[in-house]
Amino acid sequence: MPRVFSGIQPTGDPHIGNYFGAMRNYVRLGEEYGKNAIYCVVDLHAPTNPGAYDPARLAERTFEMALANMASGLDPEKVIFFAQSHVPEHTELGWLFTVITPVGELERMTQYKDKAGKLESIPAGLLMYPVLQAADILLYKADTVPVGEDQVQHIELTREIARKFNASFGETFPEPKAVLAKDALRIPGVDGDGKMSKSKGDASTLGILEPMDSIWQKLRVAPTDPARVRRTDPGDPDKCLIGDYHKLFSDLPTIELVYQGCRTAGIGCVDCKKMLMQGVRRELEPLQSRAADLRADPDRVRDALATGARLAREIARPVMEEVREKVGFLKL
Amino acid sequence: MPRVFSGIQPTGDPHIGNYFGAMRNYVRLGEEYGKNAIYCVVDLHAPTNPGAYDPARLAERTFEMALANMASGLDPEKVIFFAQSHVPEHTELGWLFTVITPVGELERMTQYKDKAGKLESIPAGLLMYPVLQAADILLYKADTVPVGEDQVQHIELTREIARKFNASFGETFPEPKAVLAKDALRIPGVDGDGKMSKSKGDASTLGILEPMDSIWQKLRVAPTDPARVRRTDPGDPDKCLIGDYHKLFSDLPTIELVYQGCRTAGIGCVDCKKMLMQGVRRELEPLQSRAADLRADPDRVRDALATGARLAREIARPVMEEVREKVGFLKL
Repeated sequence: MPRVFSGIQPTGDPHIGNYFGAMRNYVRLGEEYGKNAIYCVVDLHAPTNPGAYDPARLAERTFEMALANMASGLDPEKVIFFAQSHVPEHTELGWLFTVITPVGELERMTQYKDKAGKLESIPAGLLMYPVLQAADILLYKADTVPVGEDQVQHIELTREIARKFNASFGETFPEPKAVLAKDALRIPGVDGDGKMSKSKGDASTLGILEPMDSIWQKLRVAPTDPARVRRTDPGDPDKCLIGDYHKLFSDLPTIELVYQGCRTAGIGCVDCKKMLMQGVRRELEPLQSRAADLRADPDRVRDALATGARLAREIARPVMEEVREKVGFLKL
Repeated sequence: MPRVFSGIQPTGDPHIGNYFGAMRNYVRLGEEYGKNAIYCVVDLHAPTNPGAYDPARLAERTFEMALANMASGLDPEKVIFFAQSHVPEHTELGWLFTVITPVGELERMTQYKDKAGKLESIPAGLLMYPVLQAADILLYKADTVPVGEDQVQHIELTREIARKFNASFGETFPEPKAVLAKDALRIPGVDGDGKMSKSKGDASTLGILEPMDSIWQKLRVAPTDPARVRRTDPGDPDKCLIGDYHKLFSDLPTIELVYQGCRTAGIGCVDCKKMLMQGVRRELEPLQSRAADLRADPDRVRDALATGARLAREIARPVMEEVREKVGFLKL
């Protein structure tokens, strides 16, 4: 049975880009893979991102990200769902991979070059990030890793690390395949300024846990096809972010209705946005209601993560025992 | 109460340079510091040394190094004595230090530059070595680190890492001081070719567990003061490695006797070497007899390391709990 591993950044407040790109995919893969779907909130990686990391908020964001995924339908009893910092084997294997990974390979990583290029002093965590990432995956001998396009090079490095370890110490790890996840799909920001991204701030994003009022306020003023200056001008829904959002939230008859209405100027943009809002409510209100239940009983989230960490370690421990023996550590 | 930390390389077969430079010092500091003397066989560092590392022999060398220290008088019930790979908190803290250490600082380390300069492909473990070393020390909040001269720069980096962590996350770690250990003292190799060093092979070293016959064979042919061509030529014991060894092994009257005898040509080099051999026997035979006892009952060594790892974790765990909370990991 193949095994899927995916790392979830503890950024808190996921937006609809995260939801349609990654989170719904986790739920779907969970149905398929069960306990062979391993989802890890990668909080050990968080401090390598100096811009977004705040020690005073990391715990809260980790909790929020776990809660949001559970509210989105991820069933922690069906899959393995935990936080990286609760499984010490990650850094242990990470160190052993550090030993066999050439500095030059790490310096060649595109993400490293991009991020390091902007910094005066480069933290070593930025350089070593993909080594810990390789350990995250191989610790579970996962062979399938859904990732965004920007991570494909890191998975290629993971494959090299697996090959090198196997060559040095005997066959141990699979060479995992990257599977392009849909978060490569670019969902436009609600401010009309490029891709929806947390790094651009709240104005760009629709949070899946954001109150309906707040979502409506953003949609209400969101730019539409600039060709529709007057209500009577026909528009092109394929050039309109509201059109894009309909494809995510609305059912097929509604999509046909608004696309046709836009092209013929049969409906105005406000009506179109109101019809979108129905789909948003249908998708997000039940999710937000589950989130409220979990927030009222935070131990359900904590207990889920504790169980997940226990299950993760049940896989990780024997793998590390095998690794330790192969690397040559004294067994007591 | 100050706390001493020292890392012991699992090279196996310690020689008299290790013994007089470091191992006897551990015993002495152990008398003084008791459970605040923390000695760690640093097997996690071993694979960063591609030249000397052999996975098939690491466990044996770790065991041998523990046995040799115990035979030399290190009392595992008095101090804390364990192997690094048995305390997973080392790599966990190592990762968190990786996050705050600039790549540039690591690239400036003299030892890194020396070693990396000789390699075509530089393993990242070589670059990250001093970060894990900092974690080894600070995991126990040790403030005193006996080291050889070549490690002073790494301890300075450890101090910087402690300062940086404290500044970022609140006062947590002391800034440890390096105390120059006597292994900075250069003991000449028995082949007369520079410093006694394992890296130059068996011909240079006198092993503390080496059979007396073998030690004698090496001493017998060891070069002496080249000025003593004939038995009747006077010599200078200060220019003779046998003279140096007498200072380590012989009692004061013997040293006076052989120094005087050498300078006046009153004794020949073979006699001088035979007198040295008496001191060698007096020092090493009881040690080798304790080693034989331990080898006959290897569980005494294993149990000592297991107890040591337990005691080490009793200190490391609350430190890591403090660290985890300060860095912001979710506590379940």
